[in-house]
Amino acid sequence: MQLDGTVNLILLYDNDFVSRNSVRLMGRRLKHILEVHQPAVGDTLTVGRLGGLIGKGRITAATSIAVEMEVALGKAPPAPLAINLVLALPRPKVIKRVLLSIASLGVKRLDLINGFRVEKSYWQSPALSPAGIRDALVLGLEQARDTILPEVVQHPLFKPFVEDKLPGLIRGTLALIAHPGAGDSCPHAAAQPVTLVIGPEGGFIPYELEKLVAGGCHPVQIGARILRVETAIPFILGRLCP
Amino acid sequence: MQLDGTVNLILLYDNDFVSRNSVRLMGRRLKHILEVHQPAVGDTLTVGRLGGLIGKGRITAATSIAVEMEVALGKAPPAPLAINLVLALPRPKVIKRVLLSIASLGVKRLDLINGFRVEKSYWQSPALSPAGIRDALVLGLEQARDTILPEVVQHPLFKPFVEDKLPGLIRGTLALIAHPGAGDSCPHAAAQPVTLVIGPEGGFIPYELEKLVAGGCHPVQIGARILRVETAIPFILGRLCP
Repeated sequence: MQLDGTVNLILLYDNDFVSRNSVRLMGRRLKHILEVHQPAVGDTLTVGRLGGLIGKGRITAATSIAVEMEVALGKAPPAPLAINLVLALPRPKVIKRVLLSIASLGVKRLDLINGFRVEKSYWQSPALSPAGIRDALVLGLEQARDTILPEVVQHPLFKPFVEDKLPGLIRGTLALIAHPGAGDSCPHAAAQPVTLVIGPEGGFIPYELEKLVAGGCHPVQIGARILRVETAIPFILGRLCP
Repeated sequence: MQLDGTVNLILLYDNDFVSRNSVRLMGRRLKHILEVHQPAVGDTLTVGRLGGLIGKGRITAATSIAVEMEVALGKAPPAPLAINLVLALPRPKVIKRVLLSIASLGVKRLDLINGFRVEKSYWQSPALSPAGIRDALVLGLEQARDTILPEVVQHPLFKPFVEDKLPGLIRGTLALIAHPGAGDSCPHAAAQPVTLVIGPEGGFIPYELEKLVAGGCHPVQIGARILRVETAIPFILGRLCP
């Protein structure tokens, strides 16, 4: 599946830099610049250094082999969302779109967890390889003009995650489980950092919900509608973030 | 492109009914029931009548030709969102996903409008045919267990829309334009019905923004990040809805 983010910022890597202020790009980013921008010497593009500042790149050379830019970086990337996401691993078809989406939204920590209703085969998806994950996240950063890669951690075993990892993860945060039928509504504009847990299609089974609640998470609901995970995530994040 | 909604409710049409309480399904819904549910006589599925109530269907016969159910409908569909959406027409690749998404979220009125940054060719997309629109909306209803089709209206001319249609559309609502760089933040949990205007990739041009503001819409922003339309819509709706 082709992911269709828009490149609103060209992400630069350390090894793109041929001097302190100039870069040389080939491959995917060259192709993008040639196709979308029809670049001329002197044109400027929005760029950002992975993990660093954003700014402008002025084209000094553009051929079918490489594009060269002089860059001036001085602006901080947009603020991260103060929301960590714990997500039951979605279907492979969906995972790339979710990674792009959460990176664009500013989530900086995603824990992918197992559940009874997560098919075992999902954990074998190439979308979960380090390169697969990184490629999707980079598209999200380029979409949102961000430079800070989210950390994505995989937990193929539910119980050890809840017992050993969850307590540290939720410490100092408001820990919520999006759960249809929960007694409380999901709050608006949380005043403190949030850890948001979202279950698989069909939801957590009662045992899993009990473990998460015993681990300190509070179930909340967003109404009677059952949403696709790629719709539910931005819907709940929009509600929670100040 | 294959849309991947989940069928959480099987939508029934008037001509499925062979008597007051029994239906006979073929085609797409038969295929779905056979593949996903491996149905046996006596099994029950969640069903809903287009435009009407939801309830249960008990299978009375299932063959490769047709599935028959006795249905008992008594429950109202989930409440609609009190938010109408006015959306600059997105790329054809995106439009189907957006239609599915807004139908699942409970938007009941969508006006698709033109803009300088909307490519003219988008208006020719098969996704905008009555059947194309309806198919995508039905997937959204089946996803969210809803039965009420949203109304989708197309306005291929910007100026006549803003001058002639917008005033009636926004009457009695809080009319907002999601616009990067606007002075005010998008509110949380609106206490009154909302009309939300979302521009094309790259945004409205100044002339368009001025016309919309003169027409009574107020620009609001959701931060520095540039989101894909399919992420921005649920993000803003989650923020606005109570």
